[in-house]
Amino acid sequence: MGLSKKPYKGTRDFFPVEKRLQNYLFETMKKTAHQFSYEEYDGPMIEEVELYKAKSGEELINDQIYSFTDRGNRFVAIRPEMTPTLARMVAASYKETLRPIRWFSIPNLMRYERPQKGRLREHWQFNCDIFDAPDRLGEVEILQLAVQLMKNFGADNTMFEILINDRAIVDETFENLMSLDKDTTYKLYKIVDKAKKVTEDILKEMVSKLNLNEEQETIFFDYLSLNTFESIFIFLQKYKLDEALTTFKKFHNYAVEFGLIPFLTYDPTIVRGLDYYTGIVFEIFDKHPENRRAICGGGAYANLLKIFNEKPMTGVGFGLGDVTLTDFLRTHDLLPNVNTPTNDLLVTFQDDAALVVAQKISAKLRDNGVKVCSTFSKLKFNKVFSLAEKKGASFIAFIGGNELEKKTVLIKNLKSKEQFDISFDSIDEMVKLLK
Amino acid sequence: MGLSKKPYKGTRDFFPVEKRLQNYLFETMKKTAHQFSYEEYDGPMIEEVELYKAKSGEELINDQIYSFTDRGNRFVAIRPEMTPTLARMVAASYKETLRPIRWFSIPNLMRYERPQKGRLREHWQFNCDIFDAPDRLGEVEILQLAVQLMKNFGADNTMFEILINDRAIVDETFENLMSLDKDTTYKLYKIVDKAKKVTEDILKEMVSKLNLNEEQETIFFDYLSLNTFESIFIFLQKYKLDEALTTFKKFHNYAVEFGLIPFLTYDPTIVRGLDYYTGIVFEIFDKHPENRRAICGGGAYANLLKIFNEKPMTGVGFGLGDVTLTDFLRTHDLLPNVNTPTNDLLVTFQDDAALVVAQKISAKLRDNGVKVCSTFSKLKFNKVFSLAEKKGASFIAFIGGNELEKKTVLIKNLKSKEQFDISFDSIDEMVKLLK
Repeated sequence: MGLSKKPYKGTRDFFPVEKRLQNYLFETMKKTAHQFSYEEYDGPMIEEVELYKAKSGEELINDQIYSFTDRGNRFVAIRPEMTPTLARMVAASYKETLRPIRWFSIPNLMRYERPQKGRLREHWQFNCDIFDAPDRLGEVEILQLAVQLMKNFGADNTMFEILINDRAIVDETFENLMSLDKDTTYKLYKIVDKAKKVTEDILKEMVSKLNLNEEQETIFFDYLSLNTFESIFIFLQKYKLDEALTTFKKFHNYAVEFGLIPFLTYDPTIVRGLDYYTGIVFEIFDKHPENRRAICGGGAYANLLKIFNEKPMTGVGFGLGDVTLTDFLRTHDLLPNVNTPTNDLLVTFQDDAALVVAQKISAKLRDNGVKVCSTFSKLKFNKVFSLAEKKGASFIAFIGGNELEKKTVLIKNLKSKEQFDISFDSIDEMVKLLK
Repeated sequence: MGLSKKPYKGTRDFFPVEKRLQNYLFETMKKTAHQFSYEEYDGPMIEEVELYKAKSGEELINDQIYSFTDRGNRFVAIRPEMTPTLARMVAASYKETLRPIRWFSIPNLMRYERPQKGRLREHWQFNCDIFDAPDRLGEVEILQLAVQLMKNFGADNTMFEILINDRAIVDETFENLMSLDKDTTYKLYKIVDKAKKVTEDILKEMVSKLNLNEEQETIFFDYLSLNTFESIFIFLQKYKLDEALTTFKKFHNYAVEFGLIPFLTYDPTIVRGLDYYTGIVFEIFDKHPENRRAICGGGAYANLLKIFNEKPMTGVGFGLGDVTLTDFLRTHDLLPNVNTPTNDLLVTFQDDAALVVAQKISAKLRDNGVKVCSTFSKLKFNKVFSLAEKKGASFIAFIGGNELEKKTVLIKNLKSKEQFDISFDSIDEMVKLLK
């Protein structure tokens, strides 16, 4: 038989080493969310396709979703993103929930795509969202959380930057200042989204197809050239976009006060999902020349609950994937060493007759919360140390003929090299030594 | 629009309260596994159906599996159980892995079944397995781990028992002692499996259909009447099943030495999955009269790697589901109170002008690892305490007009009722107080 030992295409096996790394990532995410008093939630791995259609339209459904009809004739899909589930759960509970609502989750998601660097079919995504926070304070808190997360991973602003924009600015520029209709605005959004990925010539060609008049083109390329907070403020003043200026300045003031400015770069090309975001939008971008890519995206949205016929509620959130995060951490040499597990004690014996007493002591120590790795057969003294290293043990217990006679265990502290002879019965003394 | 706010049939939403409970269950499982030096692994949520067919045959595939054909024409399924993935991963890595291999995982699994008490379509299962341990020591360690798990949940042997049997005993009794052919042995296994769920009359009727002779019937009902270790030893001696007696006694001796006996009950009807287990089999059974059901099943197996054409390797393991576990803990009043989150500090202010300083202090405390919940608008003194309770805060920070003037925060310890006036700049002092 030729059964494959490999995981399904685009997915990963997590052997203990990989799982320890994943746990490190998840624990750092959870710790950060808890520092900001965000509460964890989760939903089912399957939802009805109706839900995804309502949120994302047909495009995502047709191309990238793992959908199928269940045995009860329900058209369902493995979750490709968490937001629709979040919307459903918030819609079901927000009336009874204390505001602002601060939630996070680390779901695994599946998208049908060609596996490549930074993109797999199954990945995990750290999602943080805040609902119903006062004007601009939710945006600032979500950004603080994102920065704290990166700091908790050991990163600083030499390694990453947060590219930021405000959809209100883009909307006012395109619709009011340039007087574009909905359709042209939409097309221009698509062009902006691609602006950094194409040459200037191609960009100009794309724009020329929209048949803008000279003034409109000037404004557009003027807008696209902005790259600092100062420059966008001047732009908004120059064209008298007062409302956009006021709200973006309010955000900027908070960002200054709360120490976010060293992490932020104004970027007019950041627009994110067109039908979803309505305010501040951002991406965390790797600054390393070999890994210039986004590792996180998010922003402010207003109409999450619309698909459930609920009143609008402001929300701000982001999603950060484990695959791109790992690439970032690897690029900046920030991955921890997880080659070995960690154990408090390796219990070994050097005399067959000691098996039972070794097991009894192990059991009592475990009952006291000690992490014990026991051997099942006698082990020569000189083999013990390499095993202890592989097991990441802090202490080793030896029980040889001598110890059996004296009814003691020899416990060695591998760091300080100190040794202790402790009676079989003195479990408390062992626990004190080991913890 | 009529979009449903409910999760897909047979699955659950985990709002923060439910998620905290799930985290408690998972953390207790992980803690227990680590006490025994088991290392965590995980696999993809999807596998090719071939893998499940190879392990379980067609029955499971046809009735209960969430299978579908992907866009690349692969026939795949959402994992209904973890064992095939485990087998694949062990087959891929065992040659380079230190023995014994001690692994655990807490995957979510999906089975298409009618949702009912203790059974949902999506559930999580704690899986522990040990490979290549010396004779009977793996069985004993896995049982110790299961007992420790129940103890770590606060349960004792008045609440649960481990029903235990040895497939070697059943095989020897049916095939050698009763001289039954393979087909009749198989049918009798099926009857044994149902024995406790039917009346004695129905049981006798089922047996009579097998056309056993009088001696065979006597032996069979003699076997079925056994219910203590003493009685099975006498049975094995009486019928001279020496090999089964020797190996089961060896297990029993370890169980005595390692303190397992108070948790074990011999039960001749425990046989578990027919094609899979080969040695000791067991179920953890709830003793409560209102919840008489298994919450965990496992045993020893030898041929896990056969489907990959690898050499046999002994293994022992168990699976324990979160739904039945929760029912058990609820029945015995062992569920923790998870109604509120836990936070170190609730930061409030009583003067609009204090917003920025409150946010700055919050940020600095978070940078020092403190879990801080901040309010975004001023909060009257008398409303602060009920909010602190809902947020599970240990301390409250107040910044009113007075504090703004003095540039201090008033921090109150909610347990001791002590209050402290601390300068805005003395972050270290605050951290010391709060941690």
